[in-house]
Amino acid sequence: MSQYDLVIIGSGPAGQKAAIAASKVGKKVAVVERSFSVGGACLHHGTIPSKTLREAVSYLSGVRQRELYGASYRVKDNITIQDLTFRTQRVIEREVNVVRDQLVRNYVDIISGSGCFVEPHKILITTDTGSRIVNADKVILAVGTKPARPPGIEFDDRKIVDSDGLLKLAEIPRSMTFVGGGIIGVEYATIFRTIGVRVTLIDGRQRPLDFIDDEIEDNFYFHMRDEGITLRFGENVSTVNQTEDGRVRICMESGKQLTSDSLMFAAGREGASKELNLESIGMETDQRGRIKVDEFYRTSVEDVYAVGDIIGFPSLASTSMEQGRIAAMHAMGVDVPPMSPRLPYGVYTIPEIAMVGPTEEELTKEAVPYEIGIARFRELSRVQISGGHVGLLKLLFNREDRKLLAVHILGEQATELVHIGQVLIDHGATIDYLRDAVFNYPTLSAAYKIAALDGFNKL
Amino acid sequence: MSQYDLVIIGSGPAGQKAAIAASKVGKKVAVVERSFSVGGACLHHGTIPSKTLREAVSYLSGVRQRELYGASYRVKDNITIQDLTFRTQRVIEREVNVVRDQLVRNYVDIISGSGCFVEPHKILITTDTGSRIVNADKVILAVGTKPARPPGIEFDDRKIVDSDGLLKLAEIPRSMTFVGGGIIGVEYATIFRTIGVRVTLIDGRQRPLDFIDDEIEDNFYFHMRDEGITLRFGENVSTVNQTEDGRVRICMESGKQLTSDSLMFAAGREGASKELNLESIGMETDQRGRIKVDEFYRTSVEDVYAVGDIIGFPSLASTSMEQGRIAAMHAMGVDVPPMSPRLPYGVYTIPEIAMVGPTEEELTKEAVPYEIGIARFRELSRVQISGGHVGLLKLLFNREDRKLLAVHILGEQATELVHIGQVLIDHGATIDYLRDAVFNYPTLSAAYKIAALDGFNKL
Repeated sequence: MSQYDLVIIGSGPAGQKAAIAASKVGKKVAVVERSFSVGGACLHHGTIPSKTLREAVSYLSGVRQRELYGASYRVKDNITIQDLTFRTQRVIEREVNVVRDQLVRNYVDIISGSGCFVEPHKILITTDTGSRIVNADKVILAVGTKPARPPGIEFDDRKIVDSDGLLKLAEIPRSMTFVGGGIIGVEYATIFRTIGVRVTLIDGRQRPLDFIDDEIEDNFYFHMRDEGITLRFGENVSTVNQTEDGRVRICMESGKQLTSDSLMFAAGREGASKELNLESIGMETDQRGRIKVDEFYRTSVEDVYAVGDIIGFPSLASTSMEQGRIAAMHAMGVDVPPMSPRLPYGVYTIPEIAMVGPTEEELTKEAVPYEIGIARFRELSRVQISGGHVGLLKLLFNREDRKLLAVHILGEQATELVHIGQVLIDHGATIDYLRDAVFNYPTLSAAYKIAALDGFNKL
Repeated sequence: MSQYDLVIIGSGPAGQKAAIAASKVGKKVAVVERSFSVGGACLHHGTIPSKTLREAVSYLSGVRQRELYGASYRVKDNITIQDLTFRTQRVIEREVNVVRDQLVRNYVDIISGSGCFVEPHKILITTDTGSRIVNADKVILAVGTKPARPPGIEFDDRKIVDSDGLLKLAEIPRSMTFVGGGIIGVEYATIFRTIGVRVTLIDGRQRPLDFIDDEIEDNFYFHMRDEGITLRFGENVSTVNQTEDGRVRICMESGKQLTSDSLMFAAGREGASKELNLESIGMETDQRGRIKVDEFYRTSVEDVYAVGDIIGFPSLASTSMEQGRIAAMHAMGVDVPPMSPRLPYGVYTIPEIAMVGPTEEELTKEAVPYEIGIARFRELSRVQISGGHVGLLKLLFNREDRKLLAVHILGEQATELVHIGQVLIDHGATIDYLRDAVFNYPTLSAAYKIAALDGFNKL
């Protein structure tokens, strides 16, 4: 019977970084993974495939160059599902190798099989061919989530799919309906629209992206509509049926109907905690299968930690990795500070959205006397050069001490650019710094300086 | 006779920003421009056209996606000079409008004609149709530079060109020789190589990019050669002749000969100061026509300032703009701090190079006990997704207090990414900050964290 200092269940971003952190301080570590290969939902169904799809679509459709070349230079006229999945498969294969290499290079044992608790320090590993038990001083649960499937909908992985099934589509539909306007819904809706699919997006809420600054959200909805996406917000789906000619008919509670070639549900995700046999160790989950933790990711059961999507918000690969690292360090008795309360968010739509710090609405609620500085991307030489025109960068700063409070960006490279703001805010910088700073020319980063100058004009 | 608080000669980046800064504090300002439209060499012959060419070439050749798609998906098989210049012309037109709008919106008078001194506060403006004199309390010279043409070479703007003539080429040559391996030389050499031109680069120095960190420079030369560019360093050109079949034969002092379809000289630039009649105000220039200034860009003549390429190093649009702003503020009596001594540099080669802070060689000379942290781009998910593989980000930090000292980057988006390092260094950040920071995933910015972790492993 094997004995480990740390056993991690799940090899997604959170599990990987936990394993490597513990191994680097000399501990004996195993990662248990029930899928055929390492990487978790991030690598196989989530972040990596969707971002690869997005990159492929952007390139093949020439969307970034549209202002300069029109449609005439699109790389392929008839983009097939094979064009898209070919690239996705190659990237997944490479990333699986990278992850596996990193684990092996760090002396982490990779154990294939489903892990579940026998007792807090004993994990039963089951495979098709048998089972065994490993002992662990500490356990980190990093099992992730899977798409929630609303009852009464007949998913068939062909016409009616969830986000896991999306990449199995036999062909690119001519029209698609997306239910759920959260991050996953808007990412896929804009990606498919970019290759010419007629897209409808339905959400019961009036403004589904409620964590995003209102002005950015408004701008984003403007661009979605401008690209031809139909938004049906404040509408709930009542029934879904396949028609005789093989299409999908969606009826809404308002009485509206619409028919499209396929339907994707992005109606939230639930924790993959059912098979862990958590009852055996007296641990409870919420109604969505998620586990509650403290600031060091300790669960209610001693020596058992949980990290990543299974603990809920924000469910981003970036934060999950850091949670994994912090939990592992803490579990192995190494001093580690808790995670920064100020995290960047990135939404990989077309165009991208990113933010760090509070929204205008939050600052108003807290009665912080902020002022705004805006740079519009169309004014940037760099954007003209690359043939774009959409986007803005918005700085929120305190009008008394001029310290930067938040950065909200819509547009090309937003998920990268936001880190400049993150570093500035973390170091208490004022917009005076940006006014006097020199940025390479032509760059998108120069938007920070333009926005700071705009902010000064308002003081 | 018109009377201005400030007259600026030249409407390039330095002149524009000087004009706007002075106008914003309520002064009466004029910009004198002798070309048919505003923008200077940056917009018409330099930064903007070369970066646009680079973007067009990257897109049309599919170079960024080569790892994933091979050559099969290149957008156009036969890229013509029209494909390239079409885009360049459109971007220039737009940028001219943007610049003109900005000046007009800020109540800056744009005076067409050549400006030269009558006396320090009197400028004679000459056009084809006449001349007039304007009075100025202060004058800023922002006249820029033009390519230096070595004696004995018969430039014909067809086969033998300088960087101004490059965009007038009648067709894309099958082979090109570039003389001069400075920034302009390597930018164009890699751009033309990317669309399949056989390129030879000649420079008398053994390592022409001497301001760049040795490891980055080595890596860059490796990639140039790997792409098939022939480097002839430590070689000087002795004669250049056109052959009977319309090609160009270059003989080197070492006795080597080579023949190519065309030849571009990038052998430095000289100040465009000849027509200013500087003698009339007792101002001298160096042998390359450049003007000496102090930290506020004052020349030896009272009330006359000089900014931009005309004052020499670093001759980047980004720094020129800031010089213009600082000079104008100072001239108008507004308190302004001198420019930060730590500037980012960006070289728009394929792949890009960027840096902020000293090189390893400089730190070694100063006996600073630095350590290195490196992230290789091929390890980044973001790079895999976009189909790249080339590049590295190198952090130099003090191994005693772990403060970041410098960042050197080769690869996609280097000119943008470097600003994260710039902000960190300017705020005295340590690599501890980067180790604990959360970056969006997948991004290139995450290379900072990977490099910081690598650095920690060396302590």
